Amino acid sequence: MMIIDGKKTAATIKEEIRLEVVSMLENGLKKPHLAAILVGHDGGSESYVAHKINDCAEVGFTSTLLRFEENVTEKTLLDAVNQLNQDADVDGFIVQLPLPGHISVDRVIESISPEKDVDGFHAVNVGRMALGLPCYLPATPHGVIQLLGRHQLKTTGKHCVIVGRSNIVGSPLSILLARNAEPGNCTVTLCHSRTPDLAYHTRQADILIAALGKPHFITADMVKPGAVVIDVGTSRVEDASKKSGFRLSGDVAYDEVAPITSAITPVPGGVGPMTRAMLLVNTLKAAKREIYG
Amino acid sequence: MMIIDGKKTAATIKEEIRLEVVSMLENGLKKPHLAAILVGHDGGSESYVAHKINDCAEVGFTSTLLRFEENVTEKTLLDAVNQLNQDADVDGFIVQLPLPGHISVDRVIESISPEKDVDGFHAVNVGRMALGLPCYLPATPHGVIQLLGRHQLKTTGKHCVIVGRSNIVGSPLSILLARNAEPGNCTVTLCHSRTPDLAYHTRQADILIAALGKPHFITADMVKPGAVVIDVGTSRVEDASKKSGFRLSGDVAYDEVAPITSAITPVPGGVGPMTRAMLLVNTLKAAKREIYG
Repeated sequence: MMIIDGKKTAATIKEEIRLEVVSMLENGLKKPHLAAILVGHDGGSESYVAHKINDCAEVGFTSTLLRFEENVTEKTLLDAVNQLNQDADVDGFIVQLPLPGHISVDRVIESISPEKDVDGFHAVNVGRMALGLPCYLPATPHGVIQLLGRHQLKTTGKHCVIVGRSNIVGSPLSILLARNAEPGNCTVTLCHSRTPDLAYHTRQADILIAALGKPHFITADMVKPGAVVIDVGTSRVEDASKKSGFRLSGDVAYDEVAPITSAITPVPGGVGPMTRAMLLVNTLKAAKREIYG
Repeated sequence: MMIIDGKKTAATIKEEIRLEVVSMLENGLKKPHLAAILVGHDGGSESYVAHKINDCAEVGFTSTLLRFEENVTEKTLLDAVNQLNQDADVDGFIVQLPLPGHISVDRVIESISPEKDVDGFHAVNVGRMALGLPCYLPATPHGVIQLLGRHQLKTTGKHCVIVGRSNIVGSPLSILLARNAEPGNCTVTLCHSRTPDLAYHTRQADILIAALGKPHFITADMVKPGAVVIDVGTSRVEDASKKSGFRLSGDVAYDEVAPITSAITPVPGGVGPMTRAMLLVNTLKAAKREIYG
């Protein structure tokens, strides 16, 4: 059984990016520049954005953080997005989600220029992904694809079962793994909350991807021996023994599942670090105008 | 066993549209207007476009056909698209595919204004479909959804197996049937040319959708008794007994499969007529500015 080390893989990718930035600077180009818009003071969002900014520093990117209070108007936020769209120095930017309830997430995302939408959330990038055209892939699915590819876990002809149909993980993964590519070319089954007898499906998986957000939901009896298991879940569960008061828990009951798999991602240290690395990959592509010329 | 009559269902939908146009005219609104661009003289394309124009007349739409010879330049075609984008009287338009090899289909489709893309092929509409936002759905998947819904064929909790991953049928159907809606909420398995042991998967289907374009490929041993079978295939096979020299053949070996199903679409007269009706549905939505306001 192989433990798929997402932390190490992400570090490798970041080092690749760092070296490419060095070479860009040597060629007289400017540093890639990622901007982030953060609204309010949600603990999770604060921490995600801080990590992303640290990542930028590590690989030699410029980063800019625009902060707004919880009561910011949608108009102000849309103006900020528009300013970043226009700012020639900013290659790509993200709006950290969630946003307060009085702001339309759809309208904000739609207002991002697709050329700078390094989260890959804009309809143009989602559509181009579905059509197999060049685009910014969403970070988590992209990270899963990279983990499979970089660990020589063959996907062609495999039956991949995905649990969870979210717009940012399960649904795009179902598209990416079914497409005519490697990684890809899987027979893909997409399961969700309305799937009766979920275990019937998960037990058929050569590659099982858990992205439902329920700690330790996938138990050993739901997994085919020898399967590759990718755990996208990162739920915070209370843990008094931790300074933060919580620990991250995956969707997979790791201790009982890991021994019967051929390969598995741990939580933390599996998909999570890859997600952050993929944002850097997209920002580099944006700086090099690789997608939209 | 129910034979799902697509011809009759399409006629019902067209009559609904016709009545709505009558009421629009009574309210002083203009007729919906569909335009089509046709390049060259391919027999199939000629016939499809002629049908679409007849359909417009039947429901009271205005239609315009722009014809170009096979050797038209991409520039001329893009100019024509742009002209239709600008033409306030044209509510929606299509570019009949395929296009000659010297023209980039991607570039032509990308140049269509998403607001007028009643084929639902533009990345913006595909992306919005994947995200569950209002959009023009592509005609064939939309027709299948309508056939299921209008025949009270429940989909929630069913296992739907789709054979074929094309951008215009299988792939969008896999998205639409997995989403949180009725029709929808299926556990969806998407199979394709790289799926080993296809019959293993098709035999599990409560709803089997064949969209691979191989005449009579799906045989009775590949179908679970009692399944609902939707046959999207419409291949031309030679038939000397026909005046045209060919007949339309579905992907399903109808004679042996039909008796074991609970419901099945015939070819012709199943999905085909629905596809044409859905173009009218989208054009009506365009005229009413239902999607993009």
